[in-house]
Amino acid sequence: MPDAALPIAGHRFLIVGGASLVGSATAGELLDHGAAEVVLFDNFSFGSEQAVAHLRDHPRLRLIRGDVMRLPDLLRAAEGCHGALLLAAYMTLSMDRDPWGGLDVNIRGVQNALEAARANRLRKVVFASSNAVYGYGPGVSGELVETTPFHSHGAPPAAILYGASKIIGEQLCRDYHRRHGLDYVVLRYSTVYGERQHYRAANALYIIETYDRIRRGERPQVFGDGSETKHFVYVGDLARANRMAFESAATDVAVNTSGPAPITTLELVKLVTELAGGGPEPEFVGNEPGKVRLTSGGAFRIAHEEAERVLGWKPLVDMREGLDRLIAWFNSNEGKRP
Amino acid sequence: MPDAALPIAGHRFLIVGGASLVGSATAGELLDHGAAEVVLFDNFSFGSEQAVAHLRDHPRLRLIRGDVMRLPDLLRAAEGCHGALLLAAYMTLSMDRDPWGGLDVNIRGVQNALEAARANRLRKVVFASSNAVYGYGPGVSGELVETTPFHSHGAPPAAILYGASKIIGEQLCRDYHRRHGLDYVVLRYSTVYGERQHYRAANALYIIETYDRIRRGERPQVFGDGSETKHFVYVGDLARANRMAFESAATDVAVNTSGPAPITTLELVKLVTELAGGGPEPEFVGNEPGKVRLTSGGAFRIAHEEAERVLGWKPLVDMREGLDRLIAWFNSNEGKRP
Repeated sequence: MPDAALPIAGHRFLIVGGASLVGSATAGELLDHGAAEVVLFDNFSFGSEQAVAHLRDHPRLRLIRGDVMRLPDLLRAAEGCHGALLLAAYMTLSMDRDPWGGLDVNIRGVQNALEAARANRLRKVVFASSNAVYGYGPGVSGELVETTPFHSHGAPPAAILYGASKIIGEQLCRDYHRRHGLDYVVLRYSTVYGERQHYRAANALYIIETYDRIRRGERPQVFGDGSETKHFVYVGDLARANRMAFESAATDVAVNTSGPAPITTLELVKLVTELAGGGPEPEFVGNEPGKVRLTSGGAFRIAHEEAERVLGWKPLVDMREGLDRLIAWFNSNEGKRP
Repeated sequence: MPDAALPIAGHRFLIVGGASLVGSATAGELLDHGAAEVVLFDNFSFGSEQAVAHLRDHPRLRLIRGDVMRLPDLLRAAEGCHGALLLAAYMTLSMDRDPWGGLDVNIRGVQNALEAARANRLRKVVFASSNAVYGYGPGVSGELVETTPFHSHGAPPAAILYGASKIIGEQLCRDYHRRHGLDYVVLRYSTVYGERQHYRAANALYIIETYDRIRRGERPQVFGDGSETKHFVYVGDLARANRMAFESAATDVAVNTSGPAPITTLELVKLVTELAGGGPEPEFVGNEPGKVRLTSGGAFRIAHEEAERVLGWKPLVDMREGLDRLIAWFNSNEGKRP
């Protein structure tokens, strides 16, 4: 039985794509658990100084400006580290704007990061994959488990490019494990939301747009009949999953990390309205033409039981609690958008 | 109703990755149908002079040495062309040896070729995809149709990298069609075999190895119980499919191009033995450890009815006829391997 456990206390961690929602939350989690150092590596094309401003003066945090497309940057950043969390990626909306850059970062960027981990003899890599590896459209329904195939029929090109690039990223981890013995855990994140929310992910953006409309006294918009499923995960739960993936004896495995339960679009809008202190009834509108929307087909649930079995992790923060925290952050000074 | 028909007669065609089994057969097919010129573009890393030796002195054929990773090479090669066939790719065995090179060629190489097609205002692109977009393993069974999802659970990394890279190639075609109006047809080839057979594809290689053993008087080897399905397609049928994809009014579509019927490994070995004039009974052996083998799970058939509906194409050469031609070629001077 392999023991690929990498304890947090006393060890150094590199977070590639660290100036981000998940990166900053995970940095805080690792520092709180005694990490000797956390190195945040980012080119700040999507990441922002703002996302890590609250950590900037932490004595055990180091910020490195570098690019995943430049292997030398990563080789140097990984020096002396024991573990690396690979977050840097284009998501669907940015993949749609720039498929050349997106495929570079999501594929070659992962190869470069794995190569830097190998060359520096890191003990463990955690790779941020996505439930996008199950695809989109009517085929995606019921319980999504780790062996569910990738459905792409009828989905927009950028969504398929994103999902396929994550499938490739996972396989590159497997390949480095087989060839070089590099231990890794793949976490298939569902849509992340929480404090220090960014404005790039299609589904998380919808929460913000809904809340903004309610605050302006406008009716929130529901696309279609509102029965479409979303399955979010709270950022703090993911930060804990990342930490536990390092700490766990597990290696060479991929598991879903989703929130406690899925929610329909209509339920989500009603919950945001309630947490905002009330507001007008939602308006049902058709899908916007030309906009990349990730429509799910039937009702689905992203099963996270395997993550509990393998890592001992399960999500703790439900949508009500998580949205409450997100809204409190919006309303604080920190949540003000530039 | 769009009419994206590009007649062959009087038009110029670029074949990217042209010094190959399918490239040489398609060049012959296009020249026979009156193409004004066929340009074979190849870096000769997999392609060989030998594969196109029979065409070398054709007055309407031009051979260009270039690399899909160098956009300027492709921009120049595509000048004055009306159609392009994109064949250049790493397959699973070469992807296993060199995943960096394979992902470069199968993804960035396709982007470069599409960009060269767009910049030179080509009228139509035919992209050689693969039934690898349906994946591998136990999930792949029954009728494989164009909407079948990608199964990857339990398959070797290189096989998944190959399949996912073809999914990405297809989506890049869709993306160029949406953004730039570039017409295209995706053909999902099943395993190709035929005269001028190369020695790189896992499944086609098996035919050759079997025939070689029989000729040496050795027992041909069957891995497992011999019930594993293969679904080949004869190279001449594919050359015709490529031509008809240009000629067809169809655009923005992906169809399977498989042979008349699947075959089990045991049936294949018996057929090769019979066509070789008899030989010893096959020997059943376990799977070789460490070798990339593409095991299919249950029995499957790659449906080609959609190709007939969309392109008017159906396969004409069955395994007995195709293997007979392949063996005749082996036995001729041309088939002698260096």
